[in-house]
Amino acid sequence: MTTILEELAGVLEQRKQDDAETSYVASLYGQGTNKILEKIGEEATEVIIAAKDCGAGPEAREALIREVADLWFHSMVLLAHENLHVNDVLAELARRFGVSGHTEKASRTQ
Amino acid sequence: MTTILEELAGVLEQRKQDDAETSYVASLYGQGTNKILEKIGEEATEVIIAAKDCGAGPEAREALIREVADLWFHSMVLLAHENLHVNDVLAELARRFGVSGHTEKASRTQ
Amino acid sequence: MTTILEELAGVLEQRKQDDAETSYVASLYGQGTNKILEKIGEEATEVIIAAKDCGAGPEAREALIREVADLWFHSMVLLAHENLHVNDVLAELARRFGVSGHTEKASRTQ
Amino acid sequence: MTTILEELAGVLEQRKQDDAETSYVASLYGQGTNKILEKIGEEATEVIIAAKDCGAGPEAREALIREVADLWFHSMVLLAHENLHVNDVLAELARRFGVSGHTEKASRTQ
Repeated sequence: MTTILEELAGVLEQRKQDDAETSYVASLYGQGTNKILEKIGEEATEVIIAAKDCGAGPEAREALIREVADLWFHSMVLLAHENLHVNDVLAELARRFGVSGHTEKASRTQ
Repeated sequence: MTTILEELAGVLEQRKQDDAETSYVASLYGQGTNKILEKIGEEATEVIIAAKDCGAGPEAREALIREVADLWFHSMVLLAHENLHVNDVLAELARRFGVSGHTEKASRTQ
Repeated sequence: MTTILEELAGVLEQRKQDDAETSYVASLYGQGTNKILEKIGEEATEVIIAAKDCGAGPEAREALIREVADLWFHSMVLLAHENLHVNDVLAELARRFGVSGHTEKASRTQ
Repeated sequence: MTTILEELAGVLEQRKQDDAETSYVASLYGQGTNKILEKIGEEATEVIIAAKDCGAGPEAREALIREVADLWFHSMVLLAHENLHVNDVLAELARRFGVSGHTEKASRTQ
């Protein structure tokens, strides 16, 4: 089985071959680590603002979902740019918070 | 199949019943949204600093993994606190970046 | 005597009458608090990145100065937008850190 | 004339001689640039949260003033740690935003 995050990591890896003029991700890689880190700072700020606004109703709650997605996405761009893998992050979360991940690991070996 | 993030979301949901004096997550819930958002700002900052330092060698690269894990973890605490689910974030990522998530959805129905 | 920050506060107050299409500050006011807060998050991130880079030489040190100036500037735009005054911030700093500000206050009364 | 910020810069310079166990600022210097940058990220986050809350009344408005003071204070600790001076930041603001600072410079020569 391949999870959404693993698929996305694959897409981000492929983008390293793409043209920075036509691909947003390739343009981030081209602009370098500082540009990617600026995006992480921006998206974290937008998560905070969206969370403060999310009592306003269903649309505001969807906006918070989108901002968290943006933050995680740019985190994954950073990982790809540094040749690290999202599975290392997930393994750290599993280890730290007593989540076995057994089911997932089992399905991966198939 | 249950992914690590789904398992972790389950753990975070259970923590809502826990004692804020013995559980870190329960204490975050108890302190409220602003405290959780402060943690997201802190962890985003630590990701940025760790990324700037990660050329220093394997330990620095592992530190970056840990900081991204911290950022994602506190994002998930926020989602749980707002009664949102990590699968909504993953669905948004799948939708936006042309990742099908078909395999994962298929395995979920089993 | 009028300090640079007081003069700048005066300029920011005047910008409330300006056209958002020709004035950057007026366009920030027009876009509202969230936009101004996004800028503060961005500029804080840029200060952090510039500080990590500032060992690179005199130009990098000047870049850090510019980023701190950007962060303070957007802080002052926020204060103006909320009808607060930079002198309240300076008074808080004076009070908290045992700085008398006597000379300044004395010169202000002239 | 000496402004509050110049006085504060003097205090921060003196703290370089102090004991990290009894002085908060000396302990920040001792922990190094990363610790100071973490504080800037934290304080920027707290400004954003306080600004979102500042419609709640006079106390919330005073809280925003305190958070901006915290952010500026830690910016000044960073400047001191990097042997930069707050007057460079003020000169950059004066240059960029058409603020003359003439009055201030004139009074300084007296």
